[in-house]
Amino acid sequence: MFDCTGYASHAADKPLSPFRFERRDPDADDVQIEILYCGVCHSDLHMARNEWSNSVFPVVPGHEIVGRVTRVGANVTRFSAGDLAGVGCMVDSCRNCASCREGLEQYCEKGFTGTYNDPDRKTAGLRTYGGYSRAVTVDQSFVLRIPENLELAAVAPLLCAGITTYSPLRHWRAGPGTKVGVVGLGGLGHMAVKLAVAMGADVTLFTTSQNKVEDGRRLGAQHVVVSKDKEAMKAVAGSLDLIIDAVAADHDINSYLALLRRDGTLVQVGAPEKPLALQVFSLIVPRRNFAGSLIGGIAETQEMLDFCGEHGITSDIEMIRMDQIDEAYERMLRSDVKYRFVIDMATLAA
Amino acid sequence: MFDCTGYASHAADKPLSPFRFERRDPDADDVQIEILYCGVCHSDLHMARNEWSNSVFPVVPGHEIVGRVTRVGANVTRFSAGDLAGVGCMVDSCRNCASCREGLEQYCEKGFTGTYNDPDRKTAGLRTYGGYSRAVTVDQSFVLRIPENLELAAVAPLLCAGITTYSPLRHWRAGPGTKVGVVGLGGLGHMAVKLAVAMGADVTLFTTSQNKVEDGRRLGAQHVVVSKDKEAMKAVAGSLDLIIDAVAADHDINSYLALLRRDGTLVQVGAPEKPLALQVFSLIVPRRNFAGSLIGGIAETQEMLDFCGEHGITSDIEMIRMDQIDEAYERMLRSDVKYRFVIDMATLAA
Repeated sequence: MFDCTGYASHAADKPLSPFRFERRDPDADDVQIEILYCGVCHSDLHMARNEWSNSVFPVVPGHEIVGRVTRVGANVTRFSAGDLAGVGCMVDSCRNCASCREGLEQYCEKGFTGTYNDPDRKTAGLRTYGGYSRAVTVDQSFVLRIPENLELAAVAPLLCAGITTYSPLRHWRAGPGTKVGVVGLGGLGHMAVKLAVAMGADVTLFTTSQNKVEDGRRLGAQHVVVSKDKEAMKAVAGSLDLIIDAVAADHDINSYLALLRRDGTLVQVGAPEKPLALQVFSLIVPRRNFAGSLIGGIAETQEMLDFCGEHGITSDIEMIRMDQIDEAYERMLRSDVKYRFVIDMATLAA
Repeated sequence: MFDCTGYASHAADKPLSPFRFERRDPDADDVQIEILYCGVCHSDLHMARNEWSNSVFPVVPGHEIVGRVTRVGANVTRFSAGDLAGVGCMVDSCRNCASCREGLEQYCEKGFTGTYNDPDRKTAGLRTYGGYSRAVTVDQSFVLRIPENLELAAVAPLLCAGITTYSPLRHWRAGPGTKVGVVGLGGLGHMAVKLAVAMGADVTLFTTSQNKVEDGRRLGAQHVVVSKDKEAMKAVAGSLDLIIDAVAADHDINSYLALLRRDGTLVQVGAPEKPLALQVFSLIVPRRNFAGSLIGGIAETQEMLDFCGEHGITSDIEMIRMDQIDEAYERMLRSDVKYRFVIDMATLAA
């Protein structure tokens, strides 16, 4: 065990504050990483404030982690001290169920081990603490290689926002000749636009804000539709093969399903708290699919990082100090970020 | 033109009554059919009572039609006078859009011509009148061949209830080795059970009524679950590849989505009036699909009829006289039918 410092939420209604805790030393299969940057995901806020009613305090959030390897166990072959490394939303899974065997650890039938707020599968009694911290120890099977050519801080959000949009784009075959819609221009949405464009798809961004139109084009979207414009929405009706819906608030899902062609699929990756009001006829005429998707498997996350390295893709970020985290949460709630906060871990006081 | 007799709804709040009207004589591509039996679909009731607010009175309902060919046009090659013939929900479509060219006339981009309550594409000014009538004239491209070995009256409901369940079972590949759920044991549900069993799937019927359990087994379902039984529902969670949901009333869709394995699909074929409350997490963890499906194309309807001929499948029916139609509607509303009413057209007074 070694002493670690970090920032934790100690109660749903309190700001985050410095926290000292113990991490396990690397076992034979583990990699220890000095954390350099950590992205700020909306889940961090949900968990820090116990909005999903399952937080076990103290919670050290953070699952968009990049850093440098400091120690490796005897069996570790893919990493050496000094290598760049990344950790996303998962640090372990059962590794034995059908999903794990297919490389879809995110759908592990026993439940994967989250990077924070979960019991540690390797050390009884220990819980997982996330990336708002100095260092982390993770089994090599859940550690990602980071392309050397990308701006490291801007890679961090790929570990969650990137893979969450990459996985459905691949699964439902976005590419040359396909028309892809992206709903909502935030952390997830802006990654969906960049990735879908790089895959060769014809991309239409749907946003509620007139003032995001320019930004949508800058990110590469060939078309931008302001969703309040009924005529513009009508012009796209029945034309899209795939929609990535990244909106986490309540919204009229039927108006987006109407944009799909027959046998098209809308994939929800934002997770609104309340149920969506789904008109069944939106799916019946013509035959359409409504699906969900959760992050991506480890192998697919590596594929995504390599793809981003090849295409020079990173997240648009705003760097913050560790002690600005509560302010960042408040700004996130106002969608006042383009498009992801990343914490510079050098600002974490020793 | 020729004089025809039938039964029509003349107003939303009036019982159906005898009606005389004109049908077109067969053109070169038409088939004229003497109607022997017509199934009673819930849509008939919706339209007779203007519940979808688009009825143009008088409405002659009926789109589960079987009968015998009496006349054919000069170009008609597939039918001769004396042949058995069937007509389902469609009598025409644009025949030119992508859907029509793929044999998916039910998704015709210009809208198919319904068997009743639609403008006739062939004769300006004329409207289509359905199967609660003596005879009908239909283009040969929309007329089905009927296997000779089946009980004719019990074939009628295959033209709507049969194809509505057959099409999604085929599209989502029900067959040996797949686990199929059917929700709701009514006109659609009982056909879904029979067809899925004949396709070789392992079928679980979900019903709210304890007293339908026995019937479910008689129809061939290997398993029957009373959906109020939470333990029984839990035992099936995450196990089904495909669910055909034939419930047309509001119901908790999330409790059925939970029964799907990863990448499984729930297909809604019943059409509840009010929006369903869909919890997005039901689709996200693990990745699942929610889809809709509308009847089937003409070629697929023929395939379904041939399949039913091969496997000796018909609908379970209760025969009624034409003048019992309003009473039948009332009983249908109470789900008091096993499992489809069929009108004996010989009871239509000349």
